[in-house]
Amino acid sequence: MSREIPYKIYLEEKDMPKQWYNVRADMKNKPAPLLNPVTFQPMTFEELRPVFCDELVKQELDDTTPYIDIPQEILDFYKMYRPAPLVRAYCLEKKLDTPAKIYYKFEGNNTSGSHKLNSAIAQAYYAKNQGLKGVTTETGAGQWGTALAMACAYLELDCQVYMVKCSYEQKPFRREVMRTYGAKVTPSPSDTTEIGRKILAEHPGTSGSLGCAISEAVEAASKQEGYRYVLGSVLNQVLLHQTIIGLEAKAAMDQYDIVPDVIIGCAGGGSNLGGLISPFMGEKLRGERDYCFIAVEPASCPSLTRGRFAYDYCDTGMVCPLAKMYTLGSGFIPSASHSGGLRYHGMSPVLSQLYHDGLMEARSVEQTSVFAAAEQFARVEGILPAPESSHAIKVAIDEALRCRETGEEKTILFGLTGTGYFDMYAYEKFNDGKMTDTIPTDEDLAKGFAGLPHVPGAGA
Amino acid sequence: MSREIPYKIYLEEKDMPKQWYNVRADMKNKPAPLLNPVTFQPMTFEELRPVFCDELVKQELDDTTPYIDIPQEILDFYKMYRPAPLVRAYCLEKKLDTPAKIYYKFEGNNTSGSHKLNSAIAQAYYAKNQGLKGVTTETGAGQWGTALAMACAYLELDCQVYMVKCSYEQKPFRREVMRTYGAKVTPSPSDTTEIGRKILAEHPGTSGSLGCAISEAVEAASKQEGYRYVLGSVLNQVLLHQTIIGLEAKAAMDQYDIVPDVIIGCAGGGSNLGGLISPFMGEKLRGERDYCFIAVEPASCPSLTRGRFAYDYCDTGMVCPLAKMYTLGSGFIPSASHSGGLRYHGMSPVLSQLYHDGLMEARSVEQTSVFAAAEQFARVEGILPAPESSHAIKVAIDEALRCRETGEEKTILFGLTGTGYFDMYAYEKFNDGKMTDTIPTDEDLAKGFAGLPHVPGAGA
Repeated sequence: MSREIPYKIYLEEKDMPKQWYNVRADMKNKPAPLLNPVTFQPMTFEELRPVFCDELVKQELDDTTPYIDIPQEILDFYKMYRPAPLVRAYCLEKKLDTPAKIYYKFEGNNTSGSHKLNSAIAQAYYAKNQGLKGVTTETGAGQWGTALAMACAYLELDCQVYMVKCSYEQKPFRREVMRTYGAKVTPSPSDTTEIGRKILAEHPGTSGSLGCAISEAVEAASKQEGYRYVLGSVLNQVLLHQTIIGLEAKAAMDQYDIVPDVIIGCAGGGSNLGGLISPFMGEKLRGERDYCFIAVEPASCPSLTRGRFAYDYCDTGMVCPLAKMYTLGSGFIPSASHSGGLRYHGMSPVLSQLYHDGLMEARSVEQTSVFAAAEQFARVEGILPAPESSHAIKVAIDEALRCRETGEEKTILFGLTGTGYFDMYAYEKFNDGKMTDTIPTDEDLAKGFAGLPHVPGAGA
Repeated sequence: MSREIPYKIYLEEKDMPKQWYNVRADMKNKPAPLLNPVTFQPMTFEELRPVFCDELVKQELDDTTPYIDIPQEILDFYKMYRPAPLVRAYCLEKKLDTPAKIYYKFEGNNTSGSHKLNSAIAQAYYAKNQGLKGVTTETGAGQWGTALAMACAYLELDCQVYMVKCSYEQKPFRREVMRTYGAKVTPSPSDTTEIGRKILAEHPGTSGSLGCAISEAVEAASKQEGYRYVLGSVLNQVLLHQTIIGLEAKAAMDQYDIVPDVIIGCAGGGSNLGGLISPFMGEKLRGERDYCFIAVEPASCPSLTRGRFAYDYCDTGMVCPLAKMYTLGSGFIPSASHSGGLRYHGMSPVLSQLYHDGLMEARSVEQTSVFAAAEQFARVEGILPAPESSHAIKVAIDEALRCRETGEEKTILFGLTGTGYFDMYAYEKFNDGKMTDTIPTDEDLAKGFAGLPHVPGAGA
């Protein structure tokens, strides 16, 4: 018996997921293993231990266990800001005059302003539990750094964030949120690491890059007793933690017998999209039910729609393991779009494999159309979305408008990953009509592909 | 039978309040009427109609009807961001090692970032329903302007905001949020009004004041066919709309048989505090149950703790009606604290009367201690509070620490009115140890009191 659907569905505490779901367990074609960048052999537990906490290495390598218990301490933290609401976009539907039913899972209801906190608390917890003193990381747009700072403040763990210098200077408020949560924020490149000093010597006055900040954070972790490096996307472990998004969404929908036809998420490194779709993808992989999944990426950084499926470096500095993924090449430099969280050259190996196997679609969209969708959404639904999240909004609106044409009453679910409070400079540009789109040419892409490593025996 | 208390209590849609509660109906000593600033006679319905919508004038003058139906359209809008969660501050309790039970009603879960939206949508709705074209208002810190812009976007009503010029320049992101929601934002004083041009001529280069912005907004409304002026605090109508806060809080607590001993809220014009305490105050006024209410105001602007209970102008320009309230004098200029939302010289007439009758306590606190409390709260509870809201946090922590001394297991409820995303400049000052406190001297206050109008027959 289906009940009336409320505007927002909040799970009760007792119904909240107690385990993460590991979609790799149900994949016939497993994602390819990480490779040692020197030997080109699969990375072992022992090789990964100096970089990540032991428990996280286990999760990274485990592609057979379908459900993994969420430790009670993490469940307790989740209770502070979860369940995230599943919202029926009644007002947007009305505005679009569509027969489609639109739902979104809103992950911006916490101070970090995005879904990043779901994995930040898990990674910080395992570090704390292993008796470590602290963690290091990099941040670009700032969502991940903010989330990690919050998690570390809660667990009284030291947190050192290398923030890309141009962001450090352009987003002083993001920096201050991290400081308010007790994190030490260093503009990168800095003179606190060898690699930072080297880069500063070679490129005086550089405003930094994510690749450089990663290298500094990895070095900082390796040079301090009791520290590990943590990462906010791409990795299998991160997607695992983020499945809390999809598990909650599915539980909420199940309570009201709602079955989504189309599931949409923005995709940068893949943490949000992977987390949202995993439980639904599991049903599809097991042949229980079919869904249409759509990854939405920026036209300025189109790793799925225009990239190659190949082994590549995860960082520009080439110190991290190689991952097999859809990539534009670690040397590809996306134009300075306003969706910093989607400016990554590669894509999660799990999502890359699923896309390669035809289990998921992908679309790329231009940022001016994304901000137009964001503004339309904000005015009727009341939430000011992050530019990254607005990629999903854009395609959800496109799908709903198509339903208006065809008369189909599709049920659309999309992930609204976060809020745009710290992106008002971008909104200002849009409001002033000064925003432009930059799409890489085939020549631009060719340069990136030229830098792909040759991995013996790995095929193209 | 009492159940286990979850971290957050969300009312179900069916349990959400359908009426606002008018505490004036249960007050033996009614708040004194607004007076015409020329004749000193009580303002009539006809006198107020040119300024406010008809329905809002009725609400302003009605001190006998206890419950007023919330129109369905407003209930529908409330569903988009309400119910606001009632949160049990388990983590803060643990950190403080207190036997006290601490709850907070969190009103920051909407894009405007504060409780202001509760009244903004009501005022915009009545304007729309009366067939008006638009509304004008002023904003200082920006919460009210943002909330009104959101409400007007939803109802497709024109929204014109006069923003104090120094805020307009120092808080460009607040301005952009309003623009994103389609509002026209003008820095005040401006050359678009007579009073603005007059002030600019007299004080070239002035950075403006709330008093001036009010005068411009009132003039702009009066000069445009189909426009009315709206205000975000102080007025009886605003407190009425804000009772949704207290009604939801009480309904959630009742479901779990929780009875607060102490109820705490920050107080600027009184909109949040009045809304939070009204339903509880009603029980106290009717002799059904006793509660301790504490209004918390900044030491830099201590209208309740150091002000006079007298008739005074609501605005610096002296164009609005006179209200009987605790006031520092409309000419009193509070120091430039970081809680812009609490920098008002007067206090809601309803709250002023309740305080005068000994039904409510008041305390003043200094901003450095407020930010220290805010940071402590943020690190364990995960929410980054607005400086205004943090006044309540400070006193809630004080009360909880007192319980640790005495061993009392008091239940404390406070209002967490909003988030601090647009206040990071203030947090930066605090993080850098550069924040100071300014408390007015008795001489400063004497100057403000000297400007109080002499109202024939009003005493004092």
